[in-house]
Amino acid sequence: MQSKSLFSFIFLLLFASITFSQQPQWTEVAPGVWKAVIGKPESYDLLKAAGTEPNKSALGKVGPASFPLNKPDIDATVTDGKTYLRFPLQKQEQIFGFGLNFQTVYQRGKILQLHVDHYGGKDNGRTHAPTPFYISSNGYGVFINSARYLTVYAGAGVRRDSKNPPVAKDRNTDKTWSARPYSDAVEILVPAGGVEVYVFGGPKAIDAIRRYNLFNGGGTLPPRWGLGFTQRVQRLYNADDVKNEAKAFEEKGYPLDFIGLEPGWQSKSYPCTFEWDKKRFPNPEQFVKDMMKVGIRINLWLNPYVSPEASIYNSIKPFTASHTVWVGAVPDFSMPEARKIFFGQLKKDQVDIGVSGYKIDEVDGYDHYLWPDVTTFPSGHGAEQMRQTYGLLVQRYSAEMYRALNTRTFGLVRASNGGGSSFPYVIYNDYYDHADFITALINSGFAGVLWTPEARASKTGEEWLRRFQTVVFSPMAMINAWASGTKPWSYPEVAEQVKQYSLLRMQMIPYWYSEFARYHFEGTPIFRAMNLEEGFSHEVKKEAVNQNLEQNPYAEAISKEIKDQYMAGENLLVAPLFTGQTSRKVVLPKGKWFDFYTGAYVGDGEIITVTPGLDKIPVYVKDGAIIPMMPPMLHAPAKGQVIDLEVRHYGQKPGSFKLYDDDGETFNYEKGEYSWRTITVERDAKGQWKGSISAPEKGKPNTVGQVSWNFMTK
Amino acid sequence: MQSKSLFSFIFLLLFASITFSQQPQWTEVAPGVWKAVIGKPESYDLLKAAGTEPNKSALGKVGPASFPLNKPDIDATVTDGKTYLRFPLQKQEQIFGFGLNFQTVYQRGKILQLHVDHYGGKDNGRTHAPTPFYISSNGYGVFINSARYLTVYAGAGVRRDSKNPPVAKDRNTDKTWSARPYSDAVEILVPAGGVEVYVFGGPKAIDAIRRYNLFNGGGTLPPRWGLGFTQRVQRLYNADDVKNEAKAFEEKGYPLDFIGLEPGWQSKSYPCTFEWDKKRFPNPEQFVKDMMKVGIRINLWLNPYVSPEASIYNSIKPFTASHTVWVGAVPDFSMPEARKIFFGQLKKDQVDIGVSGYKIDEVDGYDHYLWPDVTTFPSGHGAEQMRQTYGLLVQRYSAEMYRALNTRTFGLVRASNGGGSSFPYVIYNDYYDHADFITALINSGFAGVLWTPEARASKTGEEWLRRFQTVVFSPMAMINAWASGTKPWSYPEVAEQVKQYSLLRMQMIPYWYSEFARYHFEGTPIFRAMNLEEGFSHEVKKEAVNQNLEQNPYAEAISKEIKDQYMAGENLLVAPLFTGQTSRKVVLPKGKWFDFYTGAYVGDGEIITVTPGLDKIPVYVKDGAIIPMMPPMLHAPAKGQVIDLEVRHYGQKPGSFKLYDDDGETFNYEKGEYSWRTITVERDAKGQWKGSISAPEKGKPNTVGQVSWNFMTK
Repeated sequence: MQSKSLFSFIFLLLFASITFSQQPQWTEVAPGVWKAVIGKPESYDLLKAAGTEPNKSALGKVGPASFPLNKPDIDATVTDGKTYLRFPLQKQEQIFGFGLNFQTVYQRGKILQLHVDHYGGKDNGRTHAPTPFYISSNGYGVFINSARYLTVYAGAGVRRDSKNPPVAKDRNTDKTWSARPYSDAVEILVPAGGVEVYVFGGPKAIDAIRRYNLFNGGGTLPPRWGLGFTQRVQRLYNADDVKNEAKAFEEKGYPLDFIGLEPGWQSKSYPCTFEWDKKRFPNPEQFVKDMMKVGIRINLWLNPYVSPEASIYNSIKPFTASHTVWVGAVPDFSMPEARKIFFGQLKKDQVDIGVSGYKIDEVDGYDHYLWPDVTTFPSGHGAEQMRQTYGLLVQRYSAEMYRALNTRTFGLVRASNGGGSSFPYVIYNDYYDHADFITALINSGFAGVLWTPEARASKTGEEWLRRFQTVVFSPMAMINAWASGTKPWSYPEVAEQVKQYSLLRMQMIPYWYSEFARYHFEGTPIFRAMNLEEGFSHEVKKEAVNQNLEQNPYAEAISKEIKDQYMAGENLLVAPLFTGQTSRKVVLPKGKWFDFYTGAYVGDGEIITVTPGLDKIPVYVKDGAIIPMMPPMLHAPAKGQVIDLEVRHYGQKPGSFKLYDDDGETFNYEKGEYSWRTITVERDAKGQWKGSISAPEKGKPNTVGQVSWNFMTK
Repeated sequence: MQSKSLFSFIFLLLFASITFSQQPQWTEVAPGVWKAVIGKPESYDLLKAAGTEPNKSALGKVGPASFPLNKPDIDATVTDGKTYLRFPLQKQEQIFGFGLNFQTVYQRGKILQLHVDHYGGKDNGRTHAPTPFYISSNGYGVFINSARYLTVYAGAGVRRDSKNPPVAKDRNTDKTWSARPYSDAVEILVPAGGVEVYVFGGPKAIDAIRRYNLFNGGGTLPPRWGLGFTQRVQRLYNADDVKNEAKAFEEKGYPLDFIGLEPGWQSKSYPCTFEWDKKRFPNPEQFVKDMMKVGIRINLWLNPYVSPEASIYNSIKPFTASHTVWVGAVPDFSMPEARKIFFGQLKKDQVDIGVSGYKIDEVDGYDHYLWPDVTTFPSGHGAEQMRQTYGLLVQRYSAEMYRALNTRTFGLVRASNGGGSSFPYVIYNDYYDHADFITALINSGFAGVLWTPEARASKTGEEWLRRFQTVVFSPMAMINAWASGTKPWSYPEVAEQVKQYSLLRMQMIPYWYSEFARYHFEGTPIFRAMNLEEGFSHEVKKEAVNQNLEQNPYAEAISKEIKDQYMAGENLLVAPLFTGQTSRKVVLPKGKWFDFYTGAYVGDGEIITVTPGLDKIPVYVKDGAIIPMMPPMLHAPAKGQVIDLEVRHYGQKPGSFKLYDDDGETFNYEKGEYSWRTITVERDAKGQWKGSISAPEKGKPNTVGQVSWNFMTK
């Protein structure tokens, strides 16, 4: 090896001294999607780890797009063994994305190191899904397909030879001096000798996001039951405790579709055995069946670190990393041998007896628990590459178990990354700032991931209700009581309101399910920023900050932004209140908006102040919008179960809604076994509202029973 | 270039897939200093940037040392284009160092990314001097000679094949489960295909530090005036304002040796012209002379970013980086062409008219102001390498201007790194936590740098006095009033106490100067951790923290450590109080200790609680210690000025002290023009204390006048 490596070293040395700049060559690889290959990309990247296929036919339907940037303004330089990318920015351009950020929606001006990690309270690029994808208000997106830690200067660096240079100012005398001069570029450092880059066309920002999601196979379509309510029980619950919990939900009239078992279902945890604890769960198969009989599915927590006492330990050991996590072996999921052993155990022991899915914990970080960056993996992939893709790998291969059984799953995971749009997982974490949870929900729409602002416990009933109100307007309506044992009714003063919101969640399943279908078939994220909404003005206001030199020698104005209201599907605007608030401002995009609960007109392209009371989370509906709803059942409709519809119409315009239908549980929709029915509301000759629904397609799934009409705006 | 780079890429690819582990081969390159070359080190590194020469003869006097580690336990692996280093740790071993940390002295268990940066309030490796050097309580040091961002796992990772593995525990049931299992190694990631590593022998930890400093040329020896008092005036002061300031000091009886001018001395700043402002300083040469006549030297602030309006802009432009800082060009100081132009301007315009030194600002960070990591430099050095070494380069080449004139300088800089021990600069920053400033002072002794806990302004007189008391027991006694204009007497209620401490600083110059000489000739840091002191117990106490799973799912006990008291030279223990404290605990090492002010016995190897009152900072003296002092003059002794000595003796033991002497201003000491005289205090036949001082060496400098004796302990 010695002479061979010396030989390589000489060439590495030669190589390291070569700097070359190039204008990337762009090839349209799918409708409105362009790819450029810079230098020599690595053999392992995000898209290879995710392993999904573009949905080219759906991409073809997004509409025409031309290359959205001036090609000569894009630069790629390979030097010092790294790739430097540069994309232009225009004066009024805003950029979004760069993963699941928690504190800001606007990313222009940021410096981020995109690094899979638990969120540490600061938007610095370390987060559960640091998707290297940004979206411009000018209507395009850029994706860097690298499994490395990328350093992003999102309009922060200033080049000496900039075409739009800022002017040097004298700080001694010029009060307009700024610590952050104007920057005209996004610059990205890829610590590798090459990389693949993708540009997604518009013409609108939302189109670029749709193309990104469709390029990654489209968004996930959960089973219907996944949109019901889920409770994660306290960590050492046994089978009887779980049964009693389900019974209490039923008796008290709170909906429930699946229960999550936390570490105690396993014989040992942290590291894990992936085997049932015989004392707490003496007959797992019977237990899972019994629960299913009362309409409750079971989801199991795990982290993938293998206990030396696990039955699979000795067989998987050769396919694990040099370093451990909590003394558990770390499977190299990029190797088929490791996957076969690991998921073989899960399948045999849990999936085959009917367990509905998993919550895959601690595949994100943080550094003190996870494998260090000096870890080696038997596949030869670097520790950094594995850190960036481990969340993708566990999602991909656990989902494959279910796909093989033609059964959908819907679970939780703590890490994802670019390429993961189609995986049936929702991200959660250990952070617990309610306002930041909402900003994360907004940013999830830019990152190709789902995020739940889970409720765990609260200091007061007010906080509990406020958190609960937002969780029902999110991808996964969940209480995570693993530590606290909190129930929906644990705060008696708000127990009834919590129940009503749980039931509202259930009533809205037809709406949510259709919106998820659009996420899958059209790529449109369900929960997303106001900035993506037609008629929303994204004007950046600067706010002066402390000008005391002593305290802050480089004080800069701060951009004001809207990060506490969001769109939920095509028709709803959700504007949460947080503990302590009794009123708030809501920015309404242009067009008339109506109150979700009453149908009353609230405003048009203006900022309103609302005082909804503790019982209500403000939700507003577009003019002409239709919201299909079902009865407030305690469980989501079963496979093929026929359900009556209440169709609500809001506002003064006629409207239509495409209602999605399929069996709700299998992948048969991929073979065409689904239907879209058009619901229409128009005025008749007398000027009265009249609703209609298109006939079911012959031979396609149809679960719609009686349809009733509710014209909300009087 | 295309075919050549493709060719290189193929070899890079080949290389990247090669993993090889090796046991480093160690060569003793200086007494007690071993070097190993791992893989193919880069051509540019910290020691090359610093350019200093080992003081081998001084290293020879440290004493014998054998290789301090078990060689087979050290591993180096080159894989994925990176170098992974591993050094063993023993069970009770503690480690120190890894640069200028502000919040902890104990580094075991830390994960750090060593990265030159402004200190951001968290010990994560980003600091002004992230020296890649650690010291073990077992008596050795390890230095990684790399100008890259190094990721350090200082006893944090756990290998599957560890020889001292922790036991896997079941978190479900085992209350002793820990989120951070025991780790038996320091692991370091060097993002390059090779690196030079140095091991410094002991036998004690302090010996390893001494070897490190001597290997880097020995610590700096400031001019005597550098140990006097310095005031940095408000940023837009003109020549008359400065003269008036000096006059006020003189009239009020506050000592002053040099005044620092802040940005306003230049015609433009941020970016800078490096030219005097003609309005504020119409005749700089005369001004500097006039100030020198009243005993005041001038130090000038700058950051090295060149304004487009600077006279040197066009000539230096070809030797500057692709990116700017505040729209100023960034000189590539690794290129002689850039240095000649830049320092040529400083020499001609400032040094040659008598300016005594510089304060070199903003060579550290932070990311939003400094050049991004995608910057290219005309020398071909990477942006990362330049970031890690820019502080070293500005120190080295500015110091060379003074050396060429055979005149010592003593200034301020905001960044340094490994290899910089001998540079005549003190680090400062914009952070302002008093307690953390003291921890930084402690850690500076591990990092081969000097640090000043400068006083800027305070909310109360109490805070002002507390800060002032610590600044006089630091390498540079300074008020930095650039923003506030604060004077020593600005808080009338403590103005007298401040004056007394300023004068005490002056009285102690003979002690400080001798200690600095030891730093230079013997490598011993002056301001340093208690842990380096004989008889100090470094027992780690764990304190339980919040065990609420909901709030902190991975709660860990926290190590208690002593980080608020330090050694100042060989004889003094300083235990500052911070605002709001009226009493504090002081840990006294074994051996008797005496009060600095009264000579009274205070304790022996015990923890005492002291209530010194606001007027006093607790300072304790070793048994038998001698502190040489001079009269409370307003200026440090001039070159060759003869000064009377007051020799204080403390405690019950006889003692001796080696007093250093030279001309105080030039480098003639390097040609042997210096002397060490031994001061001795013993009991005479009657049991009375009796002091003596060895005769001055013939032909050597001697500035000692009358000697008086003060036996402090009655």
